[in-house]
Amino acid sequence: MIEQGNMALLTDLYEYTMANGFYQEMKDERGSFDMFFRKLPDNGRFVVLAGLGTVLKEMQNFHFEEEDLDYLRSLDIFSEDFLAYLRDFKFDCNVYAIPEGTPVFSREPVVTVEGPLLQAQLFETLLLNVVNHQTLIATKARRISASAKNRSVMEFGARRAQGPASAIYGARAAVIGGCVGTSNVLAGQKFNIPVSGTMAHSWIEAFDNEQAAFEAWAKIYPQNCSLLVDTYDVLSSGVPHAIKVFDQLSAKGYDKFGIRIDSGDITQLSTQARKMLDDAGYPDATITASNALDEHIIQSLISEGAAIDNFGVGENLITSASSPVLSGVYKLGAVQKDDGKWYPKVKVSASIGKLTLPGRKQVYRLYDPRTGSPFADLVGLRDEEIDGHIDEMEVLSADPEATKRYRTLRNIDVDELQELVLNDKGELLTGEPGVFEIQKYSQEKLAELPAAKKRLLYPDEYPVYITTALYDQQQELIENNRVE
Amino acid sequence: MIEQGNMALLTDLYEYTMANGFYQEMKDERGSFDMFFRKLPDNGRFVVLAGLGTVLKEMQNFHFEEEDLDYLRSLDIFSEDFLAYLRDFKFDCNVYAIPEGTPVFSREPVVTVEGPLLQAQLFETLLLNVVNHQTLIATKARRISASAKNRSVMEFGARRAQGPASAIYGARAAVIGGCVGTSNVLAGQKFNIPVSGTMAHSWIEAFDNEQAAFEAWAKIYPQNCSLLVDTYDVLSSGVPHAIKVFDQLSAKGYDKFGIRIDSGDITQLSTQARKMLDDAGYPDATITASNALDEHIIQSLISEGAAIDNFGVGENLITSASSPVLSGVYKLGAVQKDDGKWYPKVKVSASIGKLTLPGRKQVYRLYDPRTGSPFADLVGLRDEEIDGHIDEMEVLSADPEATKRYRTLRNIDVDELQELVLNDKGELLTGEPGVFEIQKYSQEKLAELPAAKKRLLYPDEYPVYITTALYDQQQELIENNRVE
Repeated sequence: MIEQGNMALLTDLYEYTMANGFYQEMKDERGSFDMFFRKLPDNGRFVVLAGLGTVLKEMQNFHFEEEDLDYLRSLDIFSEDFLAYLRDFKFDCNVYAIPEGTPVFSREPVVTVEGPLLQAQLFETLLLNVVNHQTLIATKARRISASAKNRSVMEFGARRAQGPASAIYGARAAVIGGCVGTSNVLAGQKFNIPVSGTMAHSWIEAFDNEQAAFEAWAKIYPQNCSLLVDTYDVLSSGVPHAIKVFDQLSAKGYDKFGIRIDSGDITQLSTQARKMLDDAGYPDATITASNALDEHIIQSLISEGAAIDNFGVGENLITSASSPVLSGVYKLGAVQKDDGKWYPKVKVSASIGKLTLPGRKQVYRLYDPRTGSPFADLVGLRDEEIDGHIDEMEVLSADPEATKRYRTLRNIDVDELQELVLNDKGELLTGEPGVFEIQKYSQEKLAELPAAKKRLLYPDEYPVYITTALYDQQQELIENNRVE
Repeated sequence: MIEQGNMALLTDLYEYTMANGFYQEMKDERGSFDMFFRKLPDNGRFVVLAGLGTVLKEMQNFHFEEEDLDYLRSLDIFSEDFLAYLRDFKFDCNVYAIPEGTPVFSREPVVTVEGPLLQAQLFETLLLNVVNHQTLIATKARRISASAKNRSVMEFGARRAQGPASAIYGARAAVIGGCVGTSNVLAGQKFNIPVSGTMAHSWIEAFDNEQAAFEAWAKIYPQNCSLLVDTYDVLSSGVPHAIKVFDQLSAKGYDKFGIRIDSGDITQLSTQARKMLDDAGYPDATITASNALDEHIIQSLISEGAAIDNFGVGENLITSASSPVLSGVYKLGAVQKDDGKWYPKVKVSASIGKLTLPGRKQVYRLYDPRTGSPFADLVGLRDEEIDGHIDEMEVLSADPEATKRYRTLRNIDVDELQELVLNDKGELLTGEPGVFEIQKYSQEKLAELPAAKKRLLYPDEYPVYITTALYDQQQELIENNRVE
């Protein structure tokens, strides 16, 4: 199985040059960094947060082998005392995060790392790599499994994934986002995900004809006989040959049958095949479709009346092909100086939309007590401690480009989203939930959201607000920058 | 460092169910499978073949640990004799391939695996995963580095790659496609690629002001001082502060300086910054740009006169964002039966464009002796043995949907492309060329191609032909299928 081994070097060089710099200049200062998203894939309103289970373990395990130190030394830019610090690296950060599987929105801090500047800086690349990737795929899987309604979706993309880890961790994320299984055996082994798959066209072609290929298969796999029926012609060859084999098997008492269609007009082929199977006495035989599917094709197939029980989705899921980049960023929110006080920091930019939220923050989900549904999220300063309920509070849009920024909240139930997940003793406080546990949690949180926010196209808005205290702090810092 | 460990399970389940089936039904029959591409990314005419160096080593190393066998056994579908075969897995395939780095075209077999059906089938997922991924990224890197002309391009995408391996092997592929370095330290260590990068905005923000941040940096890295100048304002703050630091450093005898611009109107900012640096006496200070670049933006920047020495390219390169899937496939071309004879196989399909090329094949590059340039490739049966030169030969387009299929070749020089790279004793016959050797080879092969075939948009056609012997075999097999 793939061992990730030590990922400490899966890091941009500048994290190391900065860490070395922080070591020289401000070894004891601590920083608070936030990971958040701006633009979300497929013009969606939210992403399904994923990857924490993977990255937190890597952070716990962050260390340097002698060969790593030798390599860093060979670059001839690091001081020996810094390399000695890395040799004895002792994790000393507190990591706060929104639970894996939660739908999260633009601009809110989803992961916050607080620790020595030099450590928190070093985790940037690894954290972004893992959480950007898995969140992207979980989000796509959510869209695809939502489009399939109550039918099941299996992840079939290993051969088109962007490298081995993209296949393995992509399958993990796909399950978090709603898939029921994967074709990827290694992901099945590693994450305890059901694996599925039967035959490819090469099996059929290796035999002299389709009937012989099907019969040979049935002899080996009589318990659960699923046949690929489109090698020659689905309706005139594949399905009749499959039915002959099912007849032979059912004469022997077997009863678990299925067919898979991988090309052609899936709606017509599946409805005709369904009729042929039903007429032959196999109403329980399942039909799987697997031809370059995505959420829009699946939605169409279902609305056209295609008779599909399971969808196998490949490249469009495992690469999030229509929107293959999630640009989560990691920005410094505050620095703790020798005096023990935290000083908020802001990143201004030529582009107003990239203005960051300064300070140490908490994220709240806002529920309308009349409907029980969340209608917005709120980011506040951590020391504001908003507790359970808001009677009345003025807030602003977190998006500095929003036209109507102010809003008054009245009589709102509030749920705190960020929690301490890994402490500075290196203790994981969340346990290690399995992927299906995370999926279940995710589906509960998704179920809370009004349907209009979850549309595949043109979803309704879901604002993220900030408190006036956070806004005032941001404005004050911008003013200070201007003076400089 | 990331150890890939054993990738034997990075395989779709159906490869195992088929392998188990082949083991039961035709253990001694051998197959010849071809990997080839159909649709190419970004509407290009070719891809830069990459990933062989990675996947051939994985194939050599293909084996099963007890825990892998236990996992497979737990699925309750495999026979014990098949699991015993896997425990004692002995590589027994001949792998033919076009050399890594070669520009290759649609429909031609780029990798051919010949061996026991059950082994050759098992390698499908791993081979496709690795070669699809690295070829995709090398191809994108070729486009981006071509657009940068003689300026250098560095791969900066680790944080937006699709998982850890996508970052590491993506960096490898990016160098094959023309990048000069990477920000990814692990890729640097693993593949001996120069690593680069200096500071992020968080360094600046951690200090009270930009000047202090720059001065602290210069103290630590005086030898090669590169400063990020867009935290506040490039022209009124970043560049003047940088020049002050360069003045201090050059008073001490240092002379290697640079700035990086990561936002705003790069053309205007870089030309102004260039003028300011020149006027201050730093004509050799380099300017690096790194803001969501791709081949089209770089082409525009250069034509607008931007004064950029180096480009750092992130997410659009490491994910091939504009075209994130390469759909290489792996199809059975022939089966060798007990009688020792090879029987060609064809995959017909409802879609005529998906018709495969049967038999055991060789690929030739066709050179016009007058220009010395290749103008087409030719796929023939391996036993046709076309040697060095064609006096006259009738050929057909490999694309069954082409309107004008026949063409007569006259007086053509011919270069054989596929060679045996891994033999059935598990010996690697190609050595292990480093990434920059492969890059050099790739650039030589690319230089042969006429410029019009390499355009970023609307490249000129480059046909792939098949011999009449291959065509006749294909037609005969289609006829036989029809009879069935």
